[in-house]
Amino acid sequence: MKDRIPNDIFSDSFLLKNLKAENLYFGFVKDLPIIDYHNHLEPDVISNNHNFHSPTAIWLDGDHYKWRAMRNFGIDEKFISGNTSDEEKFRKWAETVPYTLRNPLFHWTHLELKNPFGIKEYLTPNNANSVYSKMNDCLQSSDFLPQSIIEKFKVETLCTTDDPADDLGFHKALKGSLFKTNVLPAFRPDVYINIINPQEYLNKIKTLESVVGFSIHSTFDLLNALQSRINYFDEVGSKISDHGFEYFPDTTKWNSDLEKEFTEFLKGNKTSFSNPEALCGYLLKELCKMYAEKNWVQQFHVGATRNNNSLMLKNVGINAGYDAISEQYFAQRMSVMLDELNSEGQLAKTIIYNLNPIYNEVLATLAGNFNESGIKSKIQFGAAWWFLDQLDGMQKQLNTLSNIGLISTFVGMLTDSRSLLSFSRHDYFRRLLCNMFGTEMENGMLPNDEEWVGKIVQDICFNNTKNYFGF
Amino acid sequence: MKDRIPNDIFSDSFLLKNLKAENLYFGFVKDLPIIDYHNHLEPDVISNNHNFHSPTAIWLDGDHYKWRAMRNFGIDEKFISGNTSDEEKFRKWAETVPYTLRNPLFHWTHLELKNPFGIKEYLTPNNANSVYSKMNDCLQSSDFLPQSIIEKFKVETLCTTDDPADDLGFHKALKGSLFKTNVLPAFRPDVYINIINPQEYLNKIKTLESVVGFSIHSTFDLLNALQSRINYFDEVGSKISDHGFEYFPDTTKWNSDLEKEFTEFLKGNKTSFSNPEALCGYLLKELCKMYAEKNWVQQFHVGATRNNNSLMLKNVGINAGYDAISEQYFAQRMSVMLDELNSEGQLAKTIIYNLNPIYNEVLATLAGNFNESGIKSKIQFGAAWWFLDQLDGMQKQLNTLSNIGLISTFVGMLTDSRSLLSFSRHDYFRRLLCNMFGTEMENGMLPNDEEWVGKIVQDICFNNTKNYFGF
Amino acid sequence: MKDRIPNDIFSDSFLLKNLKAENLYFGFVKDLPIIDYHNHLEPDVISNNHNFHSPTAIWLDGDHYKWRAMRNFGIDEKFISGNTSDEEKFRKWAETVPYTLRNPLFHWTHLELKNPFGIKEYLTPNNANSVYSKMNDCLQSSDFLPQSIIEKFKVETLCTTDDPADDLGFHKALKGSLFKTNVLPAFRPDVYINIINPQEYLNKIKTLESVVGFSIHSTFDLLNALQSRINYFDEVGSKISDHGFEYFPDTTKWNSDLEKEFTEFLKGNKTSFSNPEALCGYLLKELCKMYAEKNWVQQFHVGATRNNNSLMLKNVGINAGYDAISEQYFAQRMSVMLDELNSEGQLAKTIIYNLNPIYNEVLATLAGNFNESGIKSKIQFGAAWWFLDQLDGMQKQLNTLSNIGLISTFVGMLTDSRSLLSFSRHDYFRRLLCNMFGTEMENGMLPNDEEWVGKIVQDICFNNTKNYFGF
Repeated sequence: MKDRIPNDIFSDSFLLKNLKAENLYFGFVKDLPIIDYHNHLEPDVISNNHNFHSPTAIWLDGDHYKWRAMRNFGIDEKFISGNTSDEEKFRKWAETVPYTLRNPLFHWTHLELKNPFGIKEYLTPNNANSVYSKMNDCLQSSDFLPQSIIEKFKVETLCTTDDPADDLGFHKALKGSLFKTNVLPAFRPDVYINIINPQEYLNKIKTLESVVGFSIHSTFDLLNALQSRINYFDEVGSKISDHGFEYFPDTTKWNSDLEKEFTEFLKGNKTSFSNPEALCGYLLKELCKMYAEKNWVQQFHVGATRNNNSLMLKNVGINAGYDAISEQYFAQRMSVMLDELNSEGQLAKTIIYNLNPIYNEVLATLAGNFNESGIKSKIQFGAAWWFLDQLDGMQKQLNTLSNIGLISTFVGMLTDSRSLLSFSRHDYFRRLLCNMFGTEMENGMLPNDEEWVGKIVQDICFNNTKNYFGF
Repeated sequence: MKDRIPNDIFSDSFLLKNLKAENLYFGFVKDLPIIDYHNHLEPDVISNNHNFHSPTAIWLDGDHYKWRAMRNFGIDEKFISGNTSDEEKFRKWAETVPYTLRNPLFHWTHLELKNPFGIKEYLTPNNANSVYSKMNDCLQSSDFLPQSIIEKFKVETLCTTDDPADDLGFHKALKGSLFKTNVLPAFRPDVYINIINPQEYLNKIKTLESVVGFSIHSTFDLLNALQSRINYFDEVGSKISDHGFEYFPDTTKWNSDLEKEFTEFLKGNKTSFSNPEALCGYLLKELCKMYAEKNWVQQFHVGATRNNNSLMLKNVGINAGYDAISEQYFAQRMSVMLDELNSEGQLAKTIIYNLNPIYNEVLATLAGNFNESGIKSKIQFGAAWWFLDQLDGMQKQLNTLSNIGLISTFVGMLTDSRSLLSFSRHDYFRRLLCNMFGTEMENGMLPNDEEWVGKIVQDICFNNTKNYFGF
Repeated sequence: MKDRIPNDIFSDSFLLKNLKAENLYFGFVKDLPIIDYHNHLEPDVISNNHNFHSPTAIWLDGDHYKWRAMRNFGIDEKFISGNTSDEEKFRKWAETVPYTLRNPLFHWTHLELKNPFGIKEYLTPNNANSVYSKMNDCLQSSDFLPQSIIEKFKVETLCTTDDPADDLGFHKALKGSLFKTNVLPAFRPDVYINIINPQEYLNKIKTLESVVGFSIHSTFDLLNALQSRINYFDEVGSKISDHGFEYFPDTTKWNSDLEKEFTEFLKGNKTSFSNPEALCGYLLKELCKMYAEKNWVQQFHVGATRNNNSLMLKNVGINAGYDAISEQYFAQRMSVMLDELNSEGQLAKTIIYNLNPIYNEVLATLAGNFNESGIKSKIQFGAAWWFLDQLDGMQKQLNTLSNIGLISTFVGMLTDSRSLLSFSRHDYFRRLLCNMFGTEMENGMLPNDEEWVGKIVQDICFNNTKNYFGF
């Protein structure tokens, strides 16, 4: 009753449901390097290259996906974000895992155990201790230092997500080191253009002032400061910026009222800002022009509502697993900004990541309206993200893109993850992709030509990415 | 050409498309009792236990699903809600049935003929008379009294939907009778918190006053009255409340303007209420606190627009098949109310039923933000409902819940029906569920372990429900 | 590796994945005539019946679907809407085609090569020249004149889309000719009820005045003029009107302010109209009453945002491939207008075409609220349209209609196309439809009765259309 079946998660043919799918995967994409063009890895962890002190440290700490599942399962918070021991937390996760069937965590968990740890067992309370030991043994060997793990996954290039005020010291150190993977910074200026908490905003401005060496009294100064940091990021190798929004701001023209309020606000004379969205809309557009000038790729992540549980925000803080998909639409606003930038000849390559899948079709049509001779799909309808980063969500994104745009020009998968173990999701994506194309070859929907189709899946998994970003 | 095929609707393996699916269904869930935790059965019908006078009476009268299909097919209203004979109405339904292919009614109709009537034929004009006779013969036997039908379906517990002013006499009579199924009331106070028609509202308040024995001059009085009825419902065994909304109201703090208008309104001095949504938002939150104190489960049914055909509303009345899915979103409002209740330590277990499937993902993420140690999925993303209560809609709900939450902790199916014959939908759900899990076992997406997966489908079909509600 | 497989796009069984699907297709629908009840063919092209001067002229010129794909692929605009030669443009399309896998264009392209041109090869840069020659040879023969092409596709009736001021001379000429296909006009008054560009609006009004022979000074005059044109269209054989909206307007009662502004506007005394939506809402409802009186079918195409790229609007003009799906909802407004018309006994048969698939369920429920004795599905939830006119989009529309309404009464496919080659999409639809029903026969979801199910797919592909429109 518990016989291993031919394509279960520990087998080579996981997710590949027919021969064509296998031929595409094994023949064309399995061994390609990884370009992870957007993630939230910490450059210091990579650069310092210290051992993780336990399986819990590398696998559970700060992983709000797993935290949500544990809370859903009724696990007490002390075993999640609390002070219990690493072993106890791990056992509570092992209790939860058998009840995560059909959630992406079930697949991710076991793909991560399999690669890099070589563990081919379903994690349950019964084997929790032995799995913990095996993982721990690995982690204490030199083979599982952060850089070794990245190399195991054949990561050619990865892009972190960085504060404009960051000195990028770790990126520079890595560039000068023997580590072969390109570790590039990406410019994420959200906190400088979107006033959520006034005091925190002013603190960030102070930091930025000290980094650029001049005072910021106006939007003009602020944009100058950000331009100077974009220049610096560009020198260190950055080719990407990133913005996150609950929904997209309206474009706003500069006006003296806005400027006046902002100037007063910077002086500390106001406890709140009347229309932060207008400010954000104005600054965003100006930044977009700077990205275009550098020939960067700008990324827009739209549709998350954050920190919806006030009690747990107080107790555990942000990025703790209390977020949700926003229901609001925003495409028309985005279309207007892209159109203005395009009319002004200043539209950078753009990737739109959408968290609410109901807006997939709208955004895929929008993306098709702004192209440029010589660039394949200048505006990309980006990969399924966060809550949608599972088979259904990925399939929907791929299908929408196929039906409305050209999937053959897609820049493919990224992890967007805080964990070094998430690179296995590239393999997950590749298997899904090969299975989609292979299945349609089998049933006559696509040409029965492995060279033709194989070239396209290879492009999606690697070549398009390399060309689009210019890595 | 008309050979019976192995898994058609009259066969044992209907909807079970592979061996694993069959093993899960037959081995783990087929014979489980039913807990139908929300429906609209009439307690007097169950308690009085009288024969239905015809197949039309038990099967067509008041069934607005079938009415809609007949109207769509061009059948004249006199054969639907009109005065023609039971036989004529039945024949018109039999004319329509062959044209309901791919609509859930086609499956429901034949599942209902099969169980409890034992009729394994497709209903058509050709066999309409004989099917009518067979059904009628059954109905006139003691084996098909309401209580017998409920017992045939192995219903362990069912929860009706009741007006707070109801004396629950039938529930009490049933409790004292030999009938083994638990028939529990549920508290549905919509008409007391949402002013739609002012005169009707005032009439309801009068009824409530006479039941509680004091006058209602203020929100304070009204809430006292409802609290007294909640106490009473609780004593009679209720564990559930239910609310229906086109969209969810904003939470509103009590304020003297609102109070003043409400007091005047209660006096009959006003022909309309300026902001019924604000009143509803305030009263709802206060009720939610009362439910939390009783450790009840609160249910929110959101997203129906009612009575969209004014002419037929005049001619046939409400609940006649002129409703639709609302397009408006409401999750952010709901999130805010749940967050406030949670911060105040007064958030009851909650089931959110969503009628517009485009909001599935949003609501499933929302539900995952409010958990409690020791409770499995305190906020449940409820089963597909009304227009969505068909294979596609159910599958979407189950997939969204799986991808974003934990399907293993789901409380499963309910009928939400006005008909004693709808219990067969539990079997429909169980087959669909087993087929989903079984198919993924077959193709390697789930562990090939029948005990493991069987336990989970069993939990979803029975154990979770029992534990969550405390039946 | 490039072996032809049994049901690829050039084979007889394309899209038919099992025996039942094949039996339904070959036995019941393959050879049915086509009723293309809504398209944008040019009546002069059909009536004049001149040769197309090249494959590019019939296949690429003005085809904004192909244009979008080429731009997405990075092709320079000069090869798209520009001045390069027909051969060059064709070669650029041939370069793009191999990268359109999974986009509907890949299937459409090869269905069109196969029928009517008899070419059974995938178009690539390698065979671009020879395919061009073969197509060109065909086009220069008398067998590929516009009327011959229409006859090849067995088109019984087709309805164009016409300006109310059109004299319908070509329709009348065709009626008097030997050409057997019925070519009927349809009434599309958008530009007369929706003020977008004031000057263009006034020019249209002038044209209308000269056609009707009286001056237009008021909404009363305008409605009289449109009524006179409806009478004329009706005499020439029109049975259909058509309206396009980004979203549906609110119904608006006539009022003297609106009238006053409109009168002033018509005099040329105003440079803009303050609330064109109100005017449109009022005029639309009045037109709907006229359609009802003529027993026409009214069509509403809702959900496109047009011309989102300002730069290319200036350079290339409208209908050039810069459109998108609108995110805005509109069903409640539409429901109110249908309800008012229904209450007043003036609701015509109506087809609702929806461009944003997220509103499918809402609209399908809405459509079920307004029926009439003796008419099968008086309000039709129309076929997937424009960006949705691909397998996924069509399947979603068919599934939603099946689950919520009666697919058996559906009026089926239309091309909505500007191209004579698009009739092959009827075949595409028929194959998809037969495959859906056939697959469900195979797996026990539908009766294993080919006469029964065959009759229904036949109705959807032909009989329902004929009956509903009264052709």
